[in-house]
Amino acid sequence: MESEERMPLFRQVYQRIRELILDGTLARGARLPSTRALATDLALSRNTVMVAVEQLVAEGYLVSRVGDGTYVAVDIPEDWETPHRPAARELQVDPATPRLSRRGERILATPIGRDSTEVRPFAVGMPALDEFPWATWNRLWMRRSRDLDRRHLCYGDPAGYRPLREAIAAYLTAGRGVICDADQVIVVSSSQQALDIASRVLIDPGDAAWLEDPGYLGARGALVAAGAEIVPVPVDEEGLQVQEGRRLASEARLVSVTPSHQFPAGVTMSLARRVELLDWAEEHDAWILEDDYDSEFRFVGAPLAALQGLDRAGRVIYIGTFTKVVYPSLRLAYVVAPRGLVKALVAARAFVDRHSPTLPQVVLSDFMAGGHFASHIRRMRSIYRDRRQSLLDALEQRLGKLLAIRSHPAGMHLVVELPAGVDDLAVARRAAERGIEISPLSRYYLGESRSGLLIGYSAVTPEEIVDGVDVLAEVIESAILSH
Amino acid sequence: MESEERMPLFRQVYQRIRELILDGTLARGARLPSTRALATDLALSRNTVMVAVEQLVAEGYLVSRVGDGTYVAVDIPEDWETPHRPAARELQVDPATPRLSRRGERILATPIGRDSTEVRPFAVGMPALDEFPWATWNRLWMRRSRDLDRRHLCYGDPAGYRPLREAIAAYLTAGRGVICDADQVIVVSSSQQALDIASRVLIDPGDAAWLEDPGYLGARGALVAAGAEIVPVPVDEEGLQVQEGRRLASEARLVSVTPSHQFPAGVTMSLARRVELLDWAEEHDAWILEDDYDSEFRFVGAPLAALQGLDRAGRVIYIGTFTKVVYPSLRLAYVVAPRGLVKALVAARAFVDRHSPTLPQVVLSDFMAGGHFASHIRRMRSIYRDRRQSLLDALEQRLGKLLAIRSHPAGMHLVVELPAGVDDLAVARRAAERGIEISPLSRYYLGESRSGLLIGYSAVTPEEIVDGVDVLAEVIESAILSH
Repeated sequence: MESEERMPLFRQVYQRIRELILDGTLARGARLPSTRALATDLALSRNTVMVAVEQLVAEGYLVSRVGDGTYVAVDIPEDWETPHRPAARELQVDPATPRLSRRGERILATPIGRDSTEVRPFAVGMPALDEFPWATWNRLWMRRSRDLDRRHLCYGDPAGYRPLREAIAAYLTAGRGVICDADQVIVVSSSQQALDIASRVLIDPGDAAWLEDPGYLGARGALVAAGAEIVPVPVDEEGLQVQEGRRLASEARLVSVTPSHQFPAGVTMSLARRVELLDWAEEHDAWILEDDYDSEFRFVGAPLAALQGLDRAGRVIYIGTFTKVVYPSLRLAYVVAPRGLVKALVAARAFVDRHSPTLPQVVLSDFMAGGHFASHIRRMRSIYRDRRQSLLDALEQRLGKLLAIRSHPAGMHLVVELPAGVDDLAVARRAAERGIEISPLSRYYLGESRSGLLIGYSAVTPEEIVDGVDVLAEVIESAILSH
Repeated sequence: MESEERMPLFRQVYQRIRELILDGTLARGARLPSTRALATDLALSRNTVMVAVEQLVAEGYLVSRVGDGTYVAVDIPEDWETPHRPAARELQVDPATPRLSRRGERILATPIGRDSTEVRPFAVGMPALDEFPWATWNRLWMRRSRDLDRRHLCYGDPAGYRPLREAIAAYLTAGRGVICDADQVIVVSSSQQALDIASRVLIDPGDAAWLEDPGYLGARGALVAAGAEIVPVPVDEEGLQVQEGRRLASEARLVSVTPSHQFPAGVTMSLARRVELLDWAEEHDAWILEDDYDSEFRFVGAPLAALQGLDRAGRVIYIGTFTKVVYPSLRLAYVVAPRGLVKALVAARAFVDRHSPTLPQVVLSDFMAGGHFASHIRRMRSIYRDRRQSLLDALEQRLGKLLAIRSHPAGMHLVVELPAGVDDLAVARRAAERGIEISPLSRYYLGESRSGLLIGYSAVTPEEIVDGVDVLAEVIESAILSH
């Protein structure tokens, strides 16, 4: 670190002279002492001083006249205060309340979902990192790193690395009932980015957009950032209440839904509702963002087919992620768009951040092509099934008489409802003090909220689950008793 | 690949039954043959059929009545066409002209800068990839991969990995004259993302924003995507003409500038103009986006201090990137924001894509802390200086009598002006046919354009430069002669 933090001598000289100019000590036209004289005064080599002076000339503070000398070249207003004095940091005064755009103010006022930065019980949506085939992954990574293809280091295609797009299309067609080919697949950094670029391309500020209530905070944030007027549409046991959406805002431009495993409530959207939703979208020339964030994990039967596969009219923009199947900090996800939208989405992606890092895409496509991805999903499905059962058993044993446990056989978390009036935020805070990470259900509501807890089971072993539920049960019991 | 592309037998059965329901052959209430009968008919195991039927029950197409049988559960409208027939792809009809937002239409109509996807003469802004210390980089990478810290796999801080933010602050303070600490540094994926999140937080649709003319296409795209009214402000030998900006739109909310090495023209903004620009911003409560994209490379004296270091009023948002110093497909860059803006920018970043991949940030901070970053910059400065001189010599020798060569001793490219009327787009096309990548200058103008060529010298050896200039000279000579 030191090599970078130490300020070179010439820069110290440069800064000192610059200060003298900026604070007016050396006014325009003032002649600088010779570099020889300065060097002697400052006990430095003449070369060091010359580099500093050349720099000041290059930046326009000084001007050199051949055979004459060096002069101060600029006028600095009298009230100019130099930021490079010792107290520079204090002199650089930020606006106390910086003037943001209205959109910026809304972004600032919108809650950011708290993602898990550690593996702890009962983090929601966190994969079992210890079960990932690291040796295989690292081997694939090193093979590509040792034998570097220079094209993988240059700028990449904003739509993504082609072989990865092909592998994703093949996986989605066979495994998720998505109808697509690689041309429709766009690699993005996250579901969040997918929601963002789709919202921007499809929504203008002031347009209405339906959001599941309760719903994913990331979707809310993306819609807010796009300037949408958010219309919360309640979710029941069949998923989004499409008729209620029609009643509230039939002219909405877009809806964001999680049909396979509603986030956070866990329900699966019924076929009838799926048909209703597609009908509404077609009728109103509206768009459906299908966020299929953890659909790989269904423990009764095979994963449900995606809503996209039912879409006859090209209204569904399908979103999936590698976050839950590989690991969160990888930052790779994908969009499957109707053909007519691909170009606009790719353009938007290019304007938000060009493209995703290439090497991780190359390694991931190797991982998929080698069959490691499919077998990892299969393996995790069985591990998560066991963990889910362990959680259900522990909850039943410790809290079964007290609480209703919503058990949907999919995903990576369960929802436990708390008696009305028991503050789930307080329960979550108290659990956190005891090392247990819990997402309070009420946080995800925009309308009237319910009290409950999201309990993630994917990142914890059965033993950790039993211990964690013991702690959690004490916290919940004490909250209910003191209520 | 095969393991993922082959459709499992049960899914074939599932799809066939679903088709029969969706096309009305099996109407609501129709009773399904027993799984035993179906299995015999289809010459499949009974288990395969049962899995398919269970799936259809789970999805709501069928309903099972205990001790009775399985029935079709849904009514499908008569005009419903199934997307899962063999011709499914043709049946999924996309809207011919999908309805985008107005913003989406503008994004689609804005040119995306073409980034170099290969190492070729004379790619602009492409580092000398062969000179990067890959052995060191891979060693650091493998050390972190073998001894995985699980926290580096979870979700990360939207502001970036703390040790990297600290290393960036130290580097910018000592090396770029930026006044900041780590709290002000936000790690982003690219300069493009920095421009995007800043524009969104600071601009509302319809707000005016100054853009250098000629200027960076990525900045134009980010401003368009934020809904800004772009005001092109001409650039001369001293950089952005601030007085002209004031005349055109003094109430603009924001300006995007490249003071150290104007892109694409190559000039450095004079001190007088810097002071004018800061004065304007302070006076009008406006913001300055300083894109310092290749400032590490200055070949006369040390790199110029950043405009940010002159800012007394917290108006400058400083942007830098690792693209030109490490490699483009890494996708890491940074923003230094006035303190009051940090929270809003981090929130915007969280809503566009949460955070950057963590492992690359960890490895890069190791690389910086080990002094490899600083010594790589020093080494590249000397290599690029030589390459620039080779290019100047070759151009002088082959084209000196024909053309004016703008020589600014900084950056990674030179600009050659073509005689008025010679079409630089055509020259670039013809050069491309001969394997030479050239950016036409006119592409970067919004107002009246000049004809010229951007010639990148950083990614080519002196020998390749001589050969490339030979080819380029032939193309240019023929264009001028036929003009």
